[in-house]
Amino acid sequence: MKRAGIINVTGYAGAELARLLWRHPEVRLSSVTGRTAAGKPLGEVFPHLAPLDLTVGEELESVDVAFSALPHAASAAALAPLIEAGLPVLDLSADFRLHDVDEYESWYGCKHPAPHLLPDAVYGLPELHRQQVASTRLVAVPGCYPSGAILALAPAVKAGLIEPEIIVDSKSGVSGAGRTLGLTYHYAEANESVSAYGLDGHRHLPEMLQELSLLCEAPAPRVTFVPHLIPMTRGILSTCYAPLAGGRLSTGNRARSEVRDIYRDFYRNEPFVRVVDSPPQTKHTWGSNCCLLYPTVDTRTQRLVVVSCLDNLVKGAAGQAVQDMNLMLGFDETAGLEDLAIYP
Amino acid sequence: MKRAGIINVTGYAGAELARLLWRHPEVRLSSVTGRTAAGKPLGEVFPHLAPLDLTVGEELESVDVAFSALPHAASAAALAPLIEAGLPVLDLSADFRLHDVDEYESWYGCKHPAPHLLPDAVYGLPELHRQQVASTRLVAVPGCYPSGAILALAPAVKAGLIEPEIIVDSKSGVSGAGRTLGLTYHYAEANESVSAYGLDGHRHLPEMLQELSLLCEAPAPRVTFVPHLIPMTRGILSTCYAPLAGGRLSTGNRARSEVRDIYRDFYRNEPFVRVVDSPPQTKHTWGSNCCLLYPTVDTRTQRLVVVSCLDNLVKGAAGQAVQDMNLMLGFDETAGLEDLAIYP
Amino acid sequence: MKRAGIINVTGYAGAELARLLWRHPEVRLSSVTGRTAAGKPLGEVFPHLAPLDLTVGEELESVDVAFSALPHAASAAALAPLIEAGLPVLDLSADFRLHDVDEYESWYGCKHPAPHLLPDAVYGLPELHRQQVASTRLVAVPGCYPSGAILALAPAVKAGLIEPEIIVDSKSGVSGAGRTLGLTYHYAEANESVSAYGLDGHRHLPEMLQELSLLCEAPAPRVTFVPHLIPMTRGILSTCYAPLAGGRLSTGNRARSEVRDIYRDFYRNEPFVRVVDSPPQTKHTWGSNCCLLYPTVDTRTQRLVVVSCLDNLVKGAAGQAVQDMNLMLGFDETAGLEDLAIYP
Amino acid sequence: MKRAGIINVTGYAGAELARLLWRHPEVRLSSVTGRTAAGKPLGEVFPHLAPLDLTVGEELESVDVAFSALPHAASAAALAPLIEAGLPVLDLSADFRLHDVDEYESWYGCKHPAPHLLPDAVYGLPELHRQQVASTRLVAVPGCYPSGAILALAPAVKAGLIEPEIIVDSKSGVSGAGRTLGLTYHYAEANESVSAYGLDGHRHLPEMLQELSLLCEAPAPRVTFVPHLIPMTRGILSTCYAPLAGGRLSTGNRARSEVRDIYRDFYRNEPFVRVVDSPPQTKHTWGSNCCLLYPTVDTRTQRLVVVSCLDNLVKGAAGQAVQDMNLMLGFDETAGLEDLAIYP
Repeated sequence: MKRAGIINVTGYAGAELARLLWRHPEVRLSSVTGRTAAGKPLGEVFPHLAPLDLTVGEELESVDVAFSALPHAASAAALAPLIEAGLPVLDLSADFRLHDVDEYESWYGCKHPAPHLLPDAVYGLPELHRQQVASTRLVAVPGCYPSGAILALAPAVKAGLIEPEIIVDSKSGVSGAGRTLGLTYHYAEANESVSAYGLDGHRHLPEMLQELSLLCEAPAPRVTFVPHLIPMTRGILSTCYAPLAGGRLSTGNRARSEVRDIYRDFYRNEPFVRVVDSPPQTKHTWGSNCCLLYPTVDTRTQRLVVVSCLDNLVKGAAGQAVQDMNLMLGFDETAGLEDLAIYP
Repeated sequence: MKRAGIINVTGYAGAELARLLWRHPEVRLSSVTGRTAAGKPLGEVFPHLAPLDLTVGEELESVDVAFSALPHAASAAALAPLIEAGLPVLDLSADFRLHDVDEYESWYGCKHPAPHLLPDAVYGLPELHRQQVASTRLVAVPGCYPSGAILALAPAVKAGLIEPEIIVDSKSGVSGAGRTLGLTYHYAEANESVSAYGLDGHRHLPEMLQELSLLCEAPAPRVTFVPHLIPMTRGILSTCYAPLAGGRLSTGNRARSEVRDIYRDFYRNEPFVRVVDSPPQTKHTWGSNCCLLYPTVDTRTQRLVVVSCLDNLVKGAAGQAVQDMNLMLGFDETAGLEDLAIYP
Repeated sequence: MKRAGIINVTGYAGAELARLLWRHPEVRLSSVTGRTAAGKPLGEVFPHLAPLDLTVGEELESVDVAFSALPHAASAAALAPLIEAGLPVLDLSADFRLHDVDEYESWYGCKHPAPHLLPDAVYGLPELHRQQVASTRLVAVPGCYPSGAILALAPAVKAGLIEPEIIVDSKSGVSGAGRTLGLTYHYAEANESVSAYGLDGHRHLPEMLQELSLLCEAPAPRVTFVPHLIPMTRGILSTCYAPLAGGRLSTGNRARSEVRDIYRDFYRNEPFVRVVDSPPQTKHTWGSNCCLLYPTVDTRTQRLVVVSCLDNLVKGAAGQAVQDMNLMLGFDETAGLEDLAIYP
Repeated sequence: MKRAGIINVTGYAGAELARLLWRHPEVRLSSVTGRTAAGKPLGEVFPHLAPLDLTVGEELESVDVAFSALPHAASAAALAPLIEAGLPVLDLSADFRLHDVDEYESWYGCKHPAPHLLPDAVYGLPELHRQQVASTRLVAVPGCYPSGAILALAPAVKAGLIEPEIIVDSKSGVSGAGRTLGLTYHYAEANESVSAYGLDGHRHLPEMLQELSLLCEAPAPRVTFVPHLIPMTRGILSTCYAPLAGGRLSTGNRARSEVRDIYRDFYRNEPFVRVVDSPPQTKHTWGSNCCLLYPTVDTRTQRLVVVSCLDNLVKGAAGQAVQDMNLMLGFDETAGLEDLAIYP
């Protein structure tokens, strides 16, 4: 058994990692850290993790692989020495997601703490970068919104099915905002309500642009991304819209099955992406590492519409990290991720 | 006091009408009908309406104004004799919303029961058709989705701000589906989940097309409309996207306040539309007849983005109907609709 | 029109008061205060209150009646000079609810700031103290839990129907915890969960004991009160249990209608208490000042069971305060409180 | 690998069984039946179960162990021939829970279809009947409410800590009502509301009486049980109240730790019962087979108060059934049930 460590286990992504690793056949979670919680039993911070019988430490103990669930900037700073020491590292923050340091600094409003490591970083979406993930020591685990949006759009962009005029309208459960308190996430304010946010530009947009650009010939896609907060705990559904490029699909209803076939083909060997025949709901992914895709065509306007569903804390964060780790360490890619969604 | 009647009070729109009329200073609800509930006290069907002390009847008694909350087709059939007798009538079904009978029959899959009355019908969105509503005997109360989407787009379409390539992505609470049982609306299935539906074409689309077309020079707008079901009871938030037509707005962030000014100007005398300075949430409209609009610009892609929020059972149905009735009968337009939203 | 003021309008009870006063025919809200929000438009703190067009002040302006929604201790301190100046005052905090200052100080862990005013204070449950409310200048608005529990038990205690061994098991929506942030009320933690709290003694217990003791001959009732937090915004349902005293009711199922008759008789002239024939749900009271009671008998064990439902922010706080104000100022008791519940 | 079958997989308990068996190391789900769904792929009825790649059949195929999730009466009828053929059988319906056939027939209002099998049936609460479960062919899986309530009360009843005057006040998520449609479970009606039901006697009461009676000397406990429906999908929290019998515990706050020690001792070797030091929430058990207990004392009134939490579909149904199966077939009792709760 390899020993894994989680830096900053006290947020939802950290806790979810701990939950998933508990069932991992090849890895044992041996060290967890937290700042204000240091010294407390993990089961006091998260009662459902009591069976792990760990104490939150201040510093990571010796491990074979490390996950960081620290906020951006703090994460790269904490991970740099580990990466330099050759430890396989998975960063759930944004620090190593963007290849372009200027882009990072303009979106995140801070100096990058370790720009020299950026060339080693791999964007950890296995469906697009499986080989690179398997051969790196530094994986940047994608953001929750980009995970679903990129998977929804990649086959269409790659196949040149669409014009690069893309709308991504996402609906997220509140756990995506983390465990830090805020009036927006106060139960009485968030319940029985929906709102749009990030309308002046959300930090997950540049990830989408970077990854979709890699898939297409010029011109680069122009993406409007609007996330919404909806009253549920887990789950992201993204609805993606783009005009069809002429001549690739039939014009009538047949286009709908043609586009599904293209998607099925693109993801045919993927263990965690499923192209479905009817519109999915996020609940079908609750607690699982699965991403469901429903591509279709608005035949009146000749637009592609793709709906994607995932659990923001699993395929959108901790599960994706475990999937990446499995690739990095040479385990079965699905190890520890076999659970079905919990329904209802 | 005028006497009002509600045909088919037993759904949510009917019950909401009864609630609103209870506080109306000029109108007294004197007759309500229902099919399976006929003979029961209204307070047995809806305990919160017990103070109205009405019995559900089979036939409408003599009234001065009638609302129908029947399903489409049944509604026009039931209303035709009343309309022909000269009674002021407000139809909450879709029967009189579309001016083009072929369009109606193709979307609703049935013969129109009273096509000869279509020329008399006014689409009851007072913000666009106030004078016509005030001078007709037959108002077609708009659908819940079109109400928010048309109000969100009308100023931009009218001013020629946008190219006619429109996406309307709507998120609705479950009460919009009515009181009829269905697995999709079963609590355990709908809770903690979000899904898209109507992807092959939703019946509220032709209303949007009809009304937006009236506002613009050719070419007619091409709209993709995708509604979503989210786990809350009341409220619709619609996020509308369209490319800016060149040259009407500044190119930088100033465009955002310019577009807000255009919207403010368009709605400057409207009692129930408020253009707001930060993204609204549906909860700010809960139980009220208010529609909140937040227009902005994605300056990276030069797209207009407009968010609209309303309560689907008030401004999206029963409240709009009361507003229309006020105009038809010459009352103060806000009579019976003064309540603020209930928050939280 | 009388001028009303709200001290500390920035919590949920304060905002709800503002909403209710907006529709009051005899009172105009003319001054609102807040601490951190001072200087801001009220519509910025609470967008749904924008139509009131008020600015949050630091100090209360001259008014004819004042409500305080300050926390305990701060409230009595702020109100004392107003009370001494003869202004009619309604305190939504706990400061004037308990007649016994020692009891207050032991439960609230602080010195009472104005014990000399306690003899003037009336516990503002109109159903029990209507005349006293009408003739005082200082009303202590009851807590949300005691409102429902006392109304549920008063007829039984008064009539000697039960032994004084009482269990009150209450289920409350999260708005009862106020607008102050806390992990317990963070959406992702509170949603899809239920928990008991206050198991070592909740501050609303002594109010229940005080009021129920006033209704019965010795011995004083012994009450176990356990509140629960459930995933909804508004509403409290209390289930109250006590052994029947022998000989007052029939022994079979007839006891159920007998006890309902006793309750109906007790509340026969009350505008805001309704004894219902089938188990109510809190949703039937949403947004209204109504308290629904369903008394019944467990004939197997000869125990009285009473279910009460109310909206914690209306009959459990702001609505009750308005009802009290109406009595104090000689208005119709129901003025401003005529709205039906909003359903669904 | 043993082959398992589920009769009537189309409800929530059946689906949850399928989910759990998917991860079971010793058992493979090989046959599932349903009535209206016969012939459909299981993944069409429940998309999250698509990976099982099963088709719903009309008749159970040959298996090594069978679960029935049929309604009562239908279940015993369907199982009788299997039981008689010697197949290990677990019945999730109520048919074999009550030892007394008259009691069964009076509560369920029907003839028992196989009373001759009752003597073979074991009430499948492993914490009370582990040896019997391990040596029977017919297990009656307990109801969701009794599971939590009996575990909450057993140590106190067994130790003679309490007088037999018991109140069980339970709060359940809506999935407990199953997948059959009903207005009470319609999203818009159940959301943002709480209600009591079963006030004239709920069918889960006789199970509680039967099991608690077995644990105590005369007199038999007198239990009032009131279930409540709260707006969440999964989880039951039961709050149990009873007067302390004199002289067993200290009189002050020390009683609280004493009672916790008694409970800890009672459950010291139990893999799925955890006695916790602070009030638990149902969310801590979401998706897991764990039951959390928090026993305490109301020292003012000398009453025992015990809070229990579990997931109604796991420890309250399908998980309990798998735990029983593990005992029956000689597997590790925790096989397939190792997952931690999913939080948040």
